[in-house]
Amino acid sequence: METPGISAPSVPAATEQDEHVRTRLLNAAVRVFDRKGYAAASVREVAEMAGVTKPAVYYHFGSKEGLLLAILHQAERQLSHTLEQADLRPGSARERIVALCEDVYALFGQHVPLARVAHAVFLGPPDGAPPFDVTVFEVKFRRSIERMVEAGIASGEFLPVATEDVALGVMAMLELCNERQLHPAFEPVGPGVVRRLISLFFDGVMNAPRG
Amino acid sequence: METPGISAPSVPAATEQDEHVRTRLLNAAVRVFDRKGYAAASVREVAEMAGVTKPAVYYHFGSKEGLLLAILHQAERQLSHTLEQADLRPGSARERIVALCEDVYALFGQHVPLARVAHAVFLGPPDGAPPFDVTVFEVKFRRSIERMVEAGIASGEFLPVATEDVALGVMAMLELCNERQLHPAFEPVGPGVVRRLISLFFDGVMNAPRG
Repeated sequence: METPGISAPSVPAATEQDEHVRTRLLNAAVRVFDRKGYAAASVREVAEMAGVTKPAVYYHFGSKEGLLLAILHQAERQLSHTLEQADLRPGSARERIVALCEDVYALFGQHVPLARVAHAVFLGPPDGAPPFDVTVFEVKFRRSIERMVEAGIASGEFLPVATEDVALGVMAMLELCNERQLHPAFEPVGPGVVRRLISLFFDGVMNAPRG
Repeated sequence: METPGISAPSVPAATEQDEHVRTRLLNAAVRVFDRKGYAAASVREVAEMAGVTKPAVYYHFGSKEGLLLAILHQAERQLSHTLEQADLRPGSARERIVALCEDVYALFGQHVPLARVAHAVFLGPPDGAPPFDVTVFEVKFRRSIERMVEAGIASGEFLPVATEDVALGVMAMLELCNERQLHPAFEPVGPGVVRRLISLFFDGVMNAPRG
């Protein structure tokens, strides 16, 4: 019960507190799903790691499935934000594409455990995960690249190559670099390699005079 | 008990029979590991699917771990064979690299369930799998490509670019195409795309006169 007239400025408002609990739960869920695997993980473990009660998880996310979907939708929003920022960036098509790839490489680097969970859940054996179209990440990214390639072809910066092939090639370079971050067995390639590989690829589509 | 004097020409010799049982067990193990996940799969299920007794599995492979290692070592030998054949192939460095990528794409296409198992076991959450350096596949492939790139640079066919970057770029193109075969959510790209993407990439490293 609150005592009227006594304000508690250090206690955040209910919605802010809720937001804080949700964030802690999402971070805890990613760690637990990553360590134990989604199928073997329990709501109890997520609640314990987040330092909240089990009913708090059900209140905020409904179920283990709800936690996983919330994690994936948050990742989708973050990627969309990065893609929107990239759309506004000035410069040549080539520079904009390289910069976008570096942005997405950095974003991926901040969310490696989440990426591992998504890989394991949707590319691994069936484990009771809720339906989620995991291709949404690559479809959104590819469309952004395709728009930039089309602009580059229209301005004469690029040869009139097949837009989808260029987008697939760029995505291939980025995916290789991203996947190197997923597992300690692979040596990570570093952001410099993202730029170098895509530059190497682009020197084949630039409209430079050839023999 | 065999009856002396009666030959049974339709029954294969003991070693041939053993080989037949081993092959059936390895194929069954890939299917069971792929469907249920390695951790959840049992030796009993593998034996049942292969139509042999459980002791037969232990006799031939020692354990579930032994089955997985035998599958991976067999895959390693098949890749090595493909790489050795590619080393003997005549032609320009560019054509040899494209042909090797098409070979490995085809080999991967024949072993999609095995590739899914390897991905799930070594990139997924810990599940009691025996130690195996899964990077051996890409290390072997990359070295073959690097040798071909070096030959291409030495002959003047390629610009004096960084050999490792070219090998990484080629691997990126091939991995994108291979990974598209791993999961029904992704549209497979088809062998024509392997050649098209690598050609697009190579037009940047060919020693063609530029402006």
